[in-house]
Amino acid sequence: MKIKNQTDVLMMDETTHNSFMEQAICLAEQGRGYTAPNPMVGAVVVKNNQVVGQGWHKGPGLAHAEVNAIDDAGDLARGSDLYVTLEPCNHTGRTPPCTEKILRAGIRRVFVGTEDPNPFVAGGGIKFLKERGVAVKVGICRRASETLIEDFIWYVKNDKQPFVVLKCAATLDGQLATRTGDSKWITNEASRKYVHRLRHWVDAIVVGAGTIRADNPSLTTRIENFDGRDPLRVILDAQLSIDPDSQVFTQQSSAKTMVAISRRADPERCALFKHRGIELLVLPEKEGIIDLACLGEALGQRGVVSLLIEGGGRVVHSALAAGVVNKIYLFFAPKLLGGNDGVPMCRGRGPELMNDALGLSQVEVERFDNDILIKGYLKQN
Amino acid sequence: MKIKNQTDVLMMDETTHNSFMEQAICLAEQGRGYTAPNPMVGAVVVKNNQVVGQGWHKGPGLAHAEVNAIDDAGDLARGSDLYVTLEPCNHTGRTPPCTEKILRAGIRRVFVGTEDPNPFVAGGGIKFLKERGVAVKVGICRRASETLIEDFIWYVKNDKQPFVVLKCAATLDGQLATRTGDSKWITNEASRKYVHRLRHWVDAIVVGAGTIRADNPSLTTRIENFDGRDPLRVILDAQLSIDPDSQVFTQQSSAKTMVAISRRADPERCALFKHRGIELLVLPEKEGIIDLACLGEALGQRGVVSLLIEGGGRVVHSALAAGVVNKIYLFFAPKLLGGNDGVPMCRGRGPELMNDALGLSQVEVERFDNDILIKGYLKQN
Repeated sequence: MKIKNQTDVLMMDETTHNSFMEQAICLAEQGRGYTAPNPMVGAVVVKNNQVVGQGWHKGPGLAHAEVNAIDDAGDLARGSDLYVTLEPCNHTGRTPPCTEKILRAGIRRVFVGTEDPNPFVAGGGIKFLKERGVAVKVGICRRASETLIEDFIWYVKNDKQPFVVLKCAATLDGQLATRTGDSKWITNEASRKYVHRLRHWVDAIVVGAGTIRADNPSLTTRIENFDGRDPLRVILDAQLSIDPDSQVFTQQSSAKTMVAISRRADPERCALFKHRGIELLVLPEKEGIIDLACLGEALGQRGVVSLLIEGGGRVVHSALAAGVVNKIYLFFAPKLLGGNDGVPMCRGRGPELMNDALGLSQVEVERFDNDILIKGYLKQN
Repeated sequence: MKIKNQTDVLMMDETTHNSFMEQAICLAEQGRGYTAPNPMVGAVVVKNNQVVGQGWHKGPGLAHAEVNAIDDAGDLARGSDLYVTLEPCNHTGRTPPCTEKILRAGIRRVFVGTEDPNPFVAGGGIKFLKERGVAVKVGICRRASETLIEDFIWYVKNDKQPFVVLKCAATLDGQLATRTGDSKWITNEASRKYVHRLRHWVDAIVVGAGTIRADNPSLTTRIENFDGRDPLRVILDAQLSIDPDSQVFTQQSSAKTMVAISRRADPERCALFKHRGIELLVLPEKEGIIDLACLGEALGQRGVVSLLIEGGGRVVHSALAAGVVNKIYLFFAPKLLGGNDGVPMCRGRGPELMNDALGLSQVEVERFDNDILIKGYLKQN
């Protein structure tokens, strides 16, 4: 087949293009949990229909995916195709611009998953490459490329609001614990292991003081044979009533534990916590609980791109009422308490009409042995 | 391949046997909802690896599946194999025994899904055939053959206790309605259509008086282009407080509507209902609601093999507490009320410990568009 022009070249075989981009997405996934505040990016270099170089972004300050893939390809990069999940950067940050690396390496064509969502960067890399004669096609596996970095896209496009994931684990009749507060264990080991993955993936985790008192959890990422990152831990405790000797403060961890308090907190207790080196974040309250919209804002400004809220019936209610939740992970154990005197999944006031319920979209169901995970996005009104 | 003896013949090709039995099971399914108090049964006649006759049981008093299949095969039945989901009957009931039909037709081999669970019949048909030189192999697709008639097996083995299916439709946070009682609609059209299938499948349906008052439902089976059977309807109303002009009494239906009342019911109201031809069933109460174990017993004695309970938070609680539920169908809409002031899925007292929750086994998940159906069996303790 004789190729007539650039457009023909770029259109030639969608399945092949998709397959290489899917490989780039898989590579990007290797970086999940390690790249913040940068997004995950993956890239492959392809020559004569063969992958000759692979790379992904491994963390802030480290080389970008394109650079790793091109270096991996070595001399084979010349005249080859590059598949990269995100638009190559065109500016000097902690590393030199990728666009120049691409030009210098003699890459012939660049296939991009999705544009950089950053309003200051958007289109810059693509434009730069096109102007210099590199064929560029954008939107290969666009949806998967965007889902890969949905938190980053949200954060950049929404003025540094974190992408909020709400997780809870309940019985099928919507109870988080029995009337005596017993919740060990609702879900099975497979589900609980997955929650540790979630913790590794996000930058920060938020729980209520009630969870600290009831379970004294460490809120670290514990995954066998895997170097998981602990998220920044934020405890909601308006009155600063929790024990400073709680495990979440005393344990060894690479991450900090902060407490979000209100002005109501006792100054002496505040001094005690500060003395121990525990950072306190003073925030407004809403219906007796720290305002989660304000907390999101504060954490976003500190570079928290993704935030996991682990409820707690009151915290779940409050997060939903605040309208800050992007995505929800509901773990259901195949159990029924058979009563409503336990801890409800959402503790608080609901709407008058069923039509005013919060609807999930893009609902997916996963099984963890007998447990059922229901995932979905909260519609943004 | 030369076949040496009967055992070899029967063992020869499991996949082939399974495939024919699966066809028989599919045929049996055609009778779902029509056969009570008989079980569904399906049969195929196979000659030279080809299905030459098909049949299923269409309803009480009508021919059994084997007879229909053999008649369908006509002269080809001689020397052929019969696959039948349930052991052929060996006694004269409303129809002559199938075993004699099989012998007369010259069937060479009979493959049976599962034995007749009836303690008076069990094994009779198989023994009879074997003694007369027909090769019989039992247990082809045993599990599927038993699941097909799980209600019948339960009923026969448990002294005419109905097989109880509990259905409810809730938001993901376990609410059946909002605080104003609004529940229209939690689930989507596809789910609601499936519920009409469930109604067709069962012999009787039980709801609480609260449901009648709130929704004034007809509780009939309404399926487009399908001749659905209405179940017997039983309303739980200890004090006989519902309106005798409720739709469930006044509508046209092939099935009766009964009210389960307690001795507390006002005699004058009882007279009024009776005068209108509405049957009242006087039963003991338990925690202010008709004792569902007693109701099951009473209905079972009347030939109700399968019973669908559509809750109602109090009815759901009461059914679970009574320990009468065999199977549960939970429809979840992809919605959250975000509060706990609505109608909870189970209204009543739960256990102290999570370990005492009621566990579901053989959990399956089905999707109805965005709705999620979680099915499972309650462990029989």
